[in-house]
Amino acid sequence: MAKDYGEVELFGVGGSPFARRVQIALELKGVQYTYFEEDLRNKSALLLKYNPVHKKVPVLVHNGRPLAESLVILEYIDETWENHHPILPQQPYDRALARFWSRYIDDKCLPAISKAAFTVDKEERDKGTEESLESLQILENELKHNFFGGETIDIVDIAAGFIAFWLPAIEEAVGLKLLTNEKFPKLYKWGEDYTNHPIVKKNLPQRDRLVGFFKARYASSNTASK
Amino acid sequence: MAKDYGEVELFGVGGSPFARRVQIALELKGVQYTYFEEDLRNKSALLLKYNPVHKKVPVLVHNGRPLAESLVILEYIDETWENHHPILPQQPYDRALARFWSRYIDDKCLPAISKAAFTVDKEERDKGTEESLESLQILENELKHNFFGGETIDIVDIAAGFIAFWLPAIEEAVGLKLLTNEKFPKLYKWGEDYTNHPIVKKNLPQRDRLVGFFKARYASSNTASK
Repeated sequence: MAKDYGEVELFGVGGSPFARRVQIALELKGVQYTYFEEDLRNKSALLLKYNPVHKKVPVLVHNGRPLAESLVILEYIDETWENHHPILPQQPYDRALARFWSRYIDDKCLPAISKAAFTVDKEERDKGTEESLESLQILENELKHNFFGGETIDIVDIAAGFIAFWLPAIEEAVGLKLLTNEKFPKLYKWGEDYTNHPIVKKNLPQRDRLVGFFKARYASSNTASK
Repeated sequence: MAKDYGEVELFGVGGSPFARRVQIALELKGVQYTYFEEDLRNKSALLLKYNPVHKKVPVLVHNGRPLAESLVILEYIDETWENHHPILPQQPYDRALARFWSRYIDDKCLPAISKAAFTVDKEERDKGTEESLESLQILENELKHNFFGGETIDIVDIAAGFIAFWLPAIEEAVGLKLLTNEKFPKLYKWGEDYTNHPIVKKNLPQRDRLVGFFKARYASSNTASK
């Protein structure tokens, strides 16, 4: 559909919420791309060449020019393939809010959830749970329509995909309950709607494998500390 | 100069590198604004109302609508007052790189420098020094012209202002040497050029007071740990 824009390559890992963000954005835009699955224990020479600073996925390579950092890539995709499914709002103030909230998810929600789930020290873990609940409450209050983007998915929804799909898998793996229908009815319903969106649904990892991955991470952090 | 865009208010703290970023951007654009100095030990009701999520400076209020997070504000300023001194490049790929590097400064350089300067544990502090030198080296390699923005100041220069002015003050306060002419000749020269730019120069805090502030911070973190 967007073939005339040249060659698009994506380096990702199936279980990575950050790489999945880019896949969802590309598919919402109808962009054809070649996908390369990385093995993070044995990173490819190309990944290290394209992202020498962070050495992480995702990396998008457009006509030979690499870009890293998922939120940076999402904005690039929106500015490059601008005629189909806007990912950021049009007005400067709304764009700024979308940037604010997508950063908020990465800077506040994700670290809090990780602390609540995988910290060994009980006091720290309880603090993580408290911070997670606070940060989810702030998102709950912010959710005024079906999606953060209104009636369609925008960059905040894509960033928050972690909360819709990865968080419930973490909860199952480590025996934690944060995102419940009772506590956060709007966010809970949003999570169901978001993960059932056809393009999102086909770009999510296999749930069982993800739960297994988080169980192993939980076990290894608890073993390492003994 | 830009009076027809309505009322612009900025809530900041004189010593904050993040609030200073916004002042520099507004003045590069020739935007008239009203400045409110906050006392972080006794935050104003307005600051808490305008930034309930982070409760931090800077907050920009444009025609009654508040925005927080300095890099988000810089992009908003660039998109709103677009006819004078671009702060982001015009092409999507260059814009993405500018976003990448300004985030890199906040996510990598600043935490490493803070760790090197103010961590009490010697091993952690040495690790911070190593990470600081690595992250400065990456910026040194990235600096290909007079400024990160080429011949004029862009968002990366404004974000890196911390390295040009605050870092040397921290070095003096805690007896550390990171940004030297010998190790990083391009970055060192950039720091001198950047802080001597007339608009930057008039929007920097008083050096002596800043050194005093960091000396007190260093002393209090060392006392607290005993």
